[in-house]
Amino acid sequence: MDRTLELAMDLIRRPSVTPHDAGCQELIAKRLARSGFAIEHLRFGDVENVWARRGTASPLVVFAGHTDVVPPGPLETWTSDPFEPVVRDGRLYGRGAADMKSSIAAFVTAIEDIVAQASGHRGSIGVLLTSDEEGPAVDGTRRVVEWLTEHGVLIDYCVVGEPTSARTLGDTIKNGRRGSLSGRLVVNGIQGHVAYPHLASNPIHALAPALAELVATEWDRGNADFPATSFQASNVRAGTGAENVIPGRLELDFNFRFSTAVTDALLRRRVEETLDRHGVDYEIAWTLSGQPYLTPRGRLVQTARAAVSEVLGIETELSTTGGTSDGRFIAPTGAEVIELGPVNATIHKIDECVAVGDPARLALLYRSLLAKLLL
Amino acid sequence: MDRTLELAMDLIRRPSVTPHDAGCQELIAKRLARSGFAIEHLRFGDVENVWARRGTASPLVVFAGHTDVVPPGPLETWTSDPFEPVVRDGRLYGRGAADMKSSIAAFVTAIEDIVAQASGHRGSIGVLLTSDEEGPAVDGTRRVVEWLTEHGVLIDYCVVGEPTSARTLGDTIKNGRRGSLSGRLVVNGIQGHVAYPHLASNPIHALAPALAELVATEWDRGNADFPATSFQASNVRAGTGAENVIPGRLELDFNFRFSTAVTDALLRRRVEETLDRHGVDYEIAWTLSGQPYLTPRGRLVQTARAAVSEVLGIETELSTTGGTSDGRFIAPTGAEVIELGPVNATIHKIDECVAVGDPARLALLYRSLLAKLLL
Repeated sequence: MDRTLELAMDLIRRPSVTPHDAGCQELIAKRLARSGFAIEHLRFGDVENVWARRGTASPLVVFAGHTDVVPPGPLETWTSDPFEPVVRDGRLYGRGAADMKSSIAAFVTAIEDIVAQASGHRGSIGVLLTSDEEGPAVDGTRRVVEWLTEHGVLIDYCVVGEPTSARTLGDTIKNGRRGSLSGRLVVNGIQGHVAYPHLASNPIHALAPALAELVATEWDRGNADFPATSFQASNVRAGTGAENVIPGRLELDFNFRFSTAVTDALLRRRVEETLDRHGVDYEIAWTLSGQPYLTPRGRLVQTARAAVSEVLGIETELSTTGGTSDGRFIAPTGAEVIELGPVNATIHKIDECVAVGDPARLALLYRSLLAKLLL
Repeated sequence: MDRTLELAMDLIRRPSVTPHDAGCQELIAKRLARSGFAIEHLRFGDVENVWARRGTASPLVVFAGHTDVVPPGPLETWTSDPFEPVVRDGRLYGRGAADMKSSIAAFVTAIEDIVAQASGHRGSIGVLLTSDEEGPAVDGTRRVVEWLTEHGVLIDYCVVGEPTSARTLGDTIKNGRRGSLSGRLVVNGIQGHVAYPHLASNPIHALAPALAELVATEWDRGNADFPATSFQASNVRAGTGAENVIPGRLELDFNFRFSTAVTDALLRRRVEETLDRHGVDYEIAWTLSGQPYLTPRGRLVQTARAAVSEVLGIETELSTTGGTSDGRFIAPTGAEVIELGPVNATIHKIDECVAVGDPARLALLYRSLLAKLLL
């Protein structure tokens, strides 16, 4: 059996439901130590993290990823046990097969091959693993990056192994991600009877024109790297249930996915100005889940595109869409960051899987990337 | 003790929580029979109703009301038992004291006094009682009016004993009521992830501009007898609870209280046109709870105003505001209909009450009205 596939299966067999690591990091750390890596186990709160580095010279090329997986959901809905990897009809099934144990396995075997080929490579190689990416993401990569900064470690190039491919392995590289800003709006009114509206103040009515304006607003037009910023309301609740009662309160949850053409401060101000202008009596609790980040089309992006073209024979596309990733914590250090990994069609779903040949092909891709940067 | 107060207390002692009558109608029917009334017990479905009439000539003057009361709510929140009437600090307390057992008691004693004074009065006197006004109002006055029509009975003047007074007994007569039209709107969208809005269709966003327009619409300016038609949203619900999910469906309940300057058909059409114009994908279930009715400022209104002035020494005001009443079922027969009864400040509330002298004063008022119309 292929070494990368075998390692991916070994990792899937460990039920590392977030925030648990279930021994995955120990397994990887032992393999990397054998290839000459210095290992740091960094535990923050309940979260296990690993920082491994081979060499001390620049440039420092890092592979980053997470060993935790999302819960499998009802076991009986899976065709086979999510934590007992199985190859069936040309696909590898198991929780984490795509997100992202195949990537982690490919990190290891790509590194092993490079080290075997050229133990005196230029620069140094790092591996950053966390078991807190699918959860709150507070004590994981964020804290490890703080630790690295305190210890004077500067990452030059970072490849995050998130499943970025859309239809076929390597077809999409993320060279950034949008920011995510959430608001929980409470509109205050005065409860009353629908037959006596002059004695009440209807928060549904108070919000309606302001909401219509927010929905119609063009926040920006995006830019060369980002689609336009989008506003989406996710939940709205008002009313006592009775049909003849004007409610005294409305709650609206909304979220921005925003580009680098705006800032979270500007979005907050524009929302509040709109509500103020319409005379809405409100409070908002804001949560900034992540700033946007963007890696310019520099050496790492060019090298990754070249590697995809050589190894997989396809043209790859740059994208900044989709959810957030731990890349947002690494990019602010000044590193060039890309995300490049398996096809994401089945992630977080029942019967998560990848094509059985993809772990090995991904290892070849990562190896090509390392070779171009360090040999 | 005053006879009207005593009868009101006897009625309050019967716990006639809607749709139960608890013997109230039997008590009234016996008293009226003694005054020469022919009694019809009209049971429709589970609802008990009474039609009583003295004489057969025109004009027919009818007192209409309901023996059912709304539930008392938590008993421990009442200062004294809601079904054990008590006079305290100059007020009569008990469920139904204002809505509307004092009125029913006053109907009876006013009639007894008139009959004693002039047994050969002109025209005839009717009493219509139902125990289904506070509930669905399907098998109550609506059905009795159908029965009367089938039996060729034409009401000329009708006084509904609803608690119409605002601050002091007799200060307000309702000479009509607004209509009530409810809508339950469902907006269809397509559920999705907030990071991929192009794959979803957000029903909150789809509705927002249409709702802003509905809220800002002037439906009419009312007229001499009615305030302007009002639109009020009462409940809105959308969302899965998750903050990163665009909901697939929104529900909005709303209600019109409408004047005679519009029609329910026109309101429905304007709402649907607004939603259509904004491209909303929706369904609406409409419920017409009541058409508006209006009694012109004819003989009954003039007579009632004169009676209030003579008996209570105050000027009364005409109004068509507030909720619906059974007057809406009687007015379409061509009868002149007014509503005139106790102060409504405590109706449907804990510690419902009237001033202890008001049942007797109300009986004097009704007696004056009868005398002006029939003697």
